[in-house]
Amino acid sequence: MAEPATATQAAAPAVPQLKDELDIVIPTIRNLDFLEMWRPFFQPYHLIIVQDGDPSKTIKVPDGFDYELYNRNDINRILGPKASCISFKDSACRCFGYMVSKKKYIFTIDDDCFVAKDPSGKAINALEQHIKNLLSPSTPFFFNTLYDPFRDGADFVRGYPFSLREGVPTAVSHGLWLNIPDYDAPTQLVKPLERNTRFVDAVLTIPKGTLFPMCGMNLAFDRELIGPAMYFGLMGDGQPIGRYDDMWAGWCTKVVCDHLGLGVKTGLPYIYHSKASNPFVNLRKEYKGIFWQEEIIPFFQQTVLPKDCTTVQKCYIELAKQVKEKLSKVDPYFDKLAEAMVTWIEAWDELNPTGSSVTNGKAK
Amino acid sequence: MAEPATATQAAAPAVPQLKDELDIVIPTIRNLDFLEMWRPFFQPYHLIIVQDGDPSKTIKVPDGFDYELYNRNDINRILGPKASCISFKDSACRCFGYMVSKKKYIFTIDDDCFVAKDPSGKAINALEQHIKNLLSPSTPFFFNTLYDPFRDGADFVRGYPFSLREGVPTAVSHGLWLNIPDYDAPTQLVKPLERNTRFVDAVLTIPKGTLFPMCGMNLAFDRELIGPAMYFGLMGDGQPIGRYDDMWAGWCTKVVCDHLGLGVKTGLPYIYHSKASNPFVNLRKEYKGIFWQEEIIPFFQQTVLPKDCTTVQKCYIELAKQVKEKLSKVDPYFDKLAEAMVTWIEAWDELNPTGSSVTNGKAK
Repeated sequence: MAEPATATQAAAPAVPQLKDELDIVIPTIRNLDFLEMWRPFFQPYHLIIVQDGDPSKTIKVPDGFDYELYNRNDINRILGPKASCISFKDSACRCFGYMVSKKKYIFTIDDDCFVAKDPSGKAINALEQHIKNLLSPSTPFFFNTLYDPFRDGADFVRGYPFSLREGVPTAVSHGLWLNIPDYDAPTQLVKPLERNTRFVDAVLTIPKGTLFPMCGMNLAFDRELIGPAMYFGLMGDGQPIGRYDDMWAGWCTKVVCDHLGLGVKTGLPYIYHSKASNPFVNLRKEYKGIFWQEEIIPFFQQTVLPKDCTTVQKCYIELAKQVKEKLSKVDPYFDKLAEAMVTWIEAWDELNPTGSSVTNGKAK
Repeated sequence: MAEPATATQAAAPAVPQLKDELDIVIPTIRNLDFLEMWRPFFQPYHLIIVQDGDPSKTIKVPDGFDYELYNRNDINRILGPKASCISFKDSACRCFGYMVSKKKYIFTIDDDCFVAKDPSGKAINALEQHIKNLLSPSTPFFFNTLYDPFRDGADFVRGYPFSLREGVPTAVSHGLWLNIPDYDAPTQLVKPLERNTRFVDAVLTIPKGTLFPMCGMNLAFDRELIGPAMYFGLMGDGQPIGRYDDMWAGWCTKVVCDHLGLGVKTGLPYIYHSKASNPFVNLRKEYKGIFWQEEIIPFFQQTVLPKDCTTVQKCYIELAKQVKEKLSKVDPYFDKLAEAMVTWIEAWDELNPTGSSVTNGKAK
């Protein structure tokens, strides 16, 4: 059985990479005690905490962390009527943090995720591995059987075209979970005791044209390359669906990355996911999604973006148009979602005017 | 540093799976002492040894193995003029073994491949893992982030469409190599000391539409599902190219599998690859391939097979036609290769008449 790490201090690097170029975004409804365990790895970085639920509640953050915190009142104040695109009572609200960040990179993590151990017992610095993934190229056009060719001790194997060995910029790094796997409600119900104990020592590029189920629990991305596509949709309060926020973002992001020639990696790093959510509650949130994904996924598999979609924003607006055209017949919800996608881009552009969207300075 | 296993006896299963339904095909020019190490795993199975080079030489096979052996004289006698499609002085000759087998499954391995150890030090029964891979479905239409969902302790993650969870039949199981990685000559020259020591505990389906570099060193497949596409081309003696036999088979096989809705897996099992081949010799064999693959791979990426190609043979004949049409401009060699592809299918059908191509009986 996998267990979380206990001693993490020794494993922290002397010089934290991208210290002033990365924000850690955490959606939460509770005190952030989980940060104690992450302290050696996260403390050098700036946190953006998105408080979900009752804004009058006070969220305690352990001493010594540099953070900004937004509750629903803040979101409403900052976005005005455009705040309608940010979900309430659902961790989808985290994408507000992506929007207000002024950094080039984002790492987002759930507050029930702890430090995992590698097979040698060493605490895994998840953020450090995400940064490695993001700073090395991806290889979406041809599969390398020895996995990430840019890792130490690995390379491209015989038969890999030399013209493709430069790779493409990596936009997304999708990390995995030891202990509680990210299962849907039916699988949770059928396998209540299943735990993930298999440490797979690999990072790989998800090939072009292949969709994947992106989980938001342990995720990093390059805001400058793909940020505006990382919209977590309309979930939770007042919506007919939950727990599909990260899936939606994953489908959209992958289609946009494929169109723009950007890479998406999955695999390392692992975090230790401590607590399975309630499968009965999850089933209620998910059940429409279980039907809908059977139509949504073929839609995204067939989506073609026109050549003149040369920026993430243009791609995303075009996607919103196609969602309205082709998914509204599935449920009127998709009409609303398509409109929210447009609002999201408007709000993004308002908070990130061209030329100033990324700085290396500190956000505040 | 990875080392080969020493004690393999204890690791052999009590009841060898598919004992009468699988042949082990070994191309060789030397005595098969390497079989001693594999004895506990291979001895229950039938071997097909394809002797390359001088047919007057005697190849010694350790006592106790059940085998048939074919040298060049046998190949010429059995195939007559059609023997021209079988390469000489190149391990590509191994595909003759696929053709004369009467079993449903093939495992092929090079004679410089030994038993590897897993991280716990246990000898890896490569054949057993290949059989597991072949007997469980593949999932080529959507990526599962926890890798093979059919392994113990794993499943489909949240967001994986339920309609795709049945999977498709697995046609190919591509295994990997510890110690000497399968690098091309330029990479060998640049990194003479690189060894693969990373044991990645994963099996995964290569997504539909994605090509990969298939290595013939440690490979298993379902002859009934994909056999006629496993042609290793024209290499070696009298040909302008070598070391692309398995690559050619891999490109063709993947395109046919994608068209017919069959799966290709890669990952486990590892074998221990003992000896790097001479990079200077390899460079001479490979250098045309290094140019050609830049055009061949886009060709295969764009290949579309018509709907009426409903069998592997029909797909392969159509591929031969397209190779002639579109690759002959690269080099006249492809004209010859396209013709050999047709000859190969004719020879296959001659040796494997419809209705009798697969039996569970013993080949002889």
